[in-house]
Amino acid sequence: MSSVAPEVEKKEEEEEQVVNPWEVSAGKGRIDYDKLVDQFGCQRLHAALIDRIARLTGRPPHRFLRRGLFFAHRDLNEILDLFEKGDKFYLYTGRGPSSEALHLGHLVPFMFTKYLQDAFKVPLVIQLTDDEKFLWKNLTVEESKRLARENAKDIIACGFDVERTFIFSDFNFVGGAFYENMVKVARCVTYNKVVGIFGFTPEDHIGKISFPPVQAVPSFPSSFPKHFSGNDQLRCLIPCAIDQDPYFRMTRDVAPRIGYQKPALIESRFFPALQGENTKMSASDPNSAIYVTDNTKEIKTKVNKYAFSGGQDSVELHRKLGANLEVDVSIKYLNFFLEDDDELERIKKEYKEGSMLTGEVKQLLVKVLSEMVERHKRARARVTEEMVDAFMAVRPLPNMFG
Amino acid sequence: MSSVAPEVEKKEEEEEQVVNPWEVSAGKGRIDYDKLVDQFGCQRLHAALIDRIARLTGRPPHRFLRRGLFFAHRDLNEILDLFEKGDKFYLYTGRGPSSEALHLGHLVPFMFTKYLQDAFKVPLVIQLTDDEKFLWKNLTVEESKRLARENAKDIIACGFDVERTFIFSDFNFVGGAFYENMVKVARCVTYNKVVGIFGFTPEDHIGKISFPPVQAVPSFPSSFPKHFSGNDQLRCLIPCAIDQDPYFRMTRDVAPRIGYQKPALIESRFFPALQGENTKMSASDPNSAIYVTDNTKEIKTKVNKYAFSGGQDSVELHRKLGANLEVDVSIKYLNFFLEDDDELERIKKEYKEGSMLTGEVKQLLVKVLSEMVERHKRARARVTEEMVDAFMAVRPLPNMFG
Repeated sequence: MSSVAPEVEKKEEEEEQVVNPWEVSAGKGRIDYDKLVDQFGCQRLHAALIDRIARLTGRPPHRFLRRGLFFAHRDLNEILDLFEKGDKFYLYTGRGPSSEALHLGHLVPFMFTKYLQDAFKVPLVIQLTDDEKFLWKNLTVEESKRLARENAKDIIACGFDVERTFIFSDFNFVGGAFYENMVKVARCVTYNKVVGIFGFTPEDHIGKISFPPVQAVPSFPSSFPKHFSGNDQLRCLIPCAIDQDPYFRMTRDVAPRIGYQKPALIESRFFPALQGENTKMSASDPNSAIYVTDNTKEIKTKVNKYAFSGGQDSVELHRKLGANLEVDVSIKYLNFFLEDDDELERIKKEYKEGSMLTGEVKQLLVKVLSEMVERHKRARARVTEEMVDAFMAVRPLPNMFG
Repeated sequence: MSSVAPEVEKKEEEEEQVVNPWEVSAGKGRIDYDKLVDQFGCQRLHAALIDRIARLTGRPPHRFLRRGLFFAHRDLNEILDLFEKGDKFYLYTGRGPSSEALHLGHLVPFMFTKYLQDAFKVPLVIQLTDDEKFLWKNLTVEESKRLARENAKDIIACGFDVERTFIFSDFNFVGGAFYENMVKVARCVTYNKVVGIFGFTPEDHIGKISFPPVQAVPSFPSSFPKHFSGNDQLRCLIPCAIDQDPYFRMTRDVAPRIGYQKPALIESRFFPALQGENTKMSASDPNSAIYVTDNTKEIKTKVNKYAFSGGQDSVELHRKLGANLEVDVSIKYLNFFLEDDDELERIKKEYKEGSMLTGEVKQLLVKVLSEMVERHKRARARVTEEMVDAFMAVRPLPNMFG
């Protein structure tokens, strides 16, 4: 699994946008999400469906839904049909543990998944693809496993319910029923097919070619016989960024051929780099992202120095013309993390009109991000090794749908 | 793992011999083993090395060695150097459980491996590649696993020592340290490389491309942390038929790159079909093979009716010209299974001179095979489910080098 914040450098010469689990490049300009939806064949997440989620769960839709940050889906309507009839489903998300510290983009799918777990009261499996990171990055097995466990602490700090959440590392959990499903999936997918979906080349190692089934099979409850015993037809809903869609297109193609249900998806846009949506985001450039380990001073410096501004070059001009919200990164970040819709609207209005300056918006953003990061740090500090063990224990989930 | 008796049909139009784990075809004429040794880059097993085995183990070499049936190796001399210094190694062999009943060819590697285990007093791991058979044959996972367990009974009936033997099915055992080694191997092998070694095509499913690391990693003791804990540099010797060489060429290429020892090999010729070495052997043709479930009457009928004869068309001509031993299948089978060297020489001499007739040789062969099959049946009948569980239990081997 990759995050909502892909860490791959854009090739400058490319004009066409490229989006797959290991590369996100906009080509010229910004990511065209409409084009992606058409290209991938998923569905747009319309207001009617969001209203239906609110009605069924009895709580207001998450800001990521209200603001179109989760903007596409596959078969989400079927999941809601089930839920309305009193049937259940489970959630599956994950993370490729490629770095020690998470940045804000990494938190987005987990914040959203926590909302879904709380709203629908359903079990959740979280896959840490330490094998993927071993295969794609220059890490040892031991380092990949260590990062997986460290990342598990950040994930637990997001507030998941241990009574219905299973976190696993592939290196630790692959085997048995999980491996059987991997082999079943692999038998249904040709080399040509994975080349078409993922863009592998003949010079790629076979670890890459072997990996897609590993990310596919958490979509099937029979991969978790201890957790979902007797629930082999339980439907699965996957919250993820849209660059993960290729895995699940493949999975949905295979599912009926091996007697399983297709997983449903709810898919987000990418979390932009400080430098803006059309530039590269790189793990090797600490100035492109804000980490959950940054302190307030660092956040302030990064936002003030690097957050791309849609404001005008001079105060005078800004008062006259106002800001271009389409390219302003501070506004984009507030869109993700400022909960209060009215305040957000006010800021956007005043900034657009020119009555609010970039510096003022950034000051607000620093406050919002610092509070969020401090809250996360406090929560993470409370995560003990025993808690990690509890979430990662292979066991029946005691209060799965409670 | 495939057996010494590949079950793949020969394509009649092919002139070139093709030998890989799933296809053995001689082209025109018979398998050219000399050419195979050169093509694969393994070494011929000379008399001096066989003498050394006899000297080091203090027992006469197995008839399969005396008669050149195991005829090639890789680094066997290094294994013997170790052993001479008082160091140990372990044995690894396996079987792809594609059929309920084993035929005589399937027994060959196990008979030989038992001799090696007894002679060197070393531990042994036996891999049952139920995943491979699921991937290549049209079987369900459950059926593949059932066949693996049934085949384990036949293997146990060959007399292995439970105190130093671990039998495992991939579907049951893959995971943990074994999976970590699979992924390590996979990262070192490109798609182009497996195409070169195994002849995969882009239309092959990715299960096939993913499989070679599964057969590679039992070569590394760290894949069995419960069994070989603290013996991570223990050398491995693999007795197998030469069609398995491609797997271990790949494994030996990868081993030093991931800090492991290369496995050594001792490799056999193929066990011929009743119809002779230049014709197809097919699991779908029960008349091409003698099964360990056949009764004496069936064995008699098959040998008399189908075993290709090197004798002449009439008794008169036979008395005059004698038999062509090179193509006579009964002689080939006696070469595998008649223990008494002197009697074998006598039979060959008299048959070649024409004083012995095909019918007489076949009568002797029926006796040898019937006794062997009856002995196997009795041994198999004594194998209980508890014994299977004991061999397949993941545990330290109590008397590994005792």
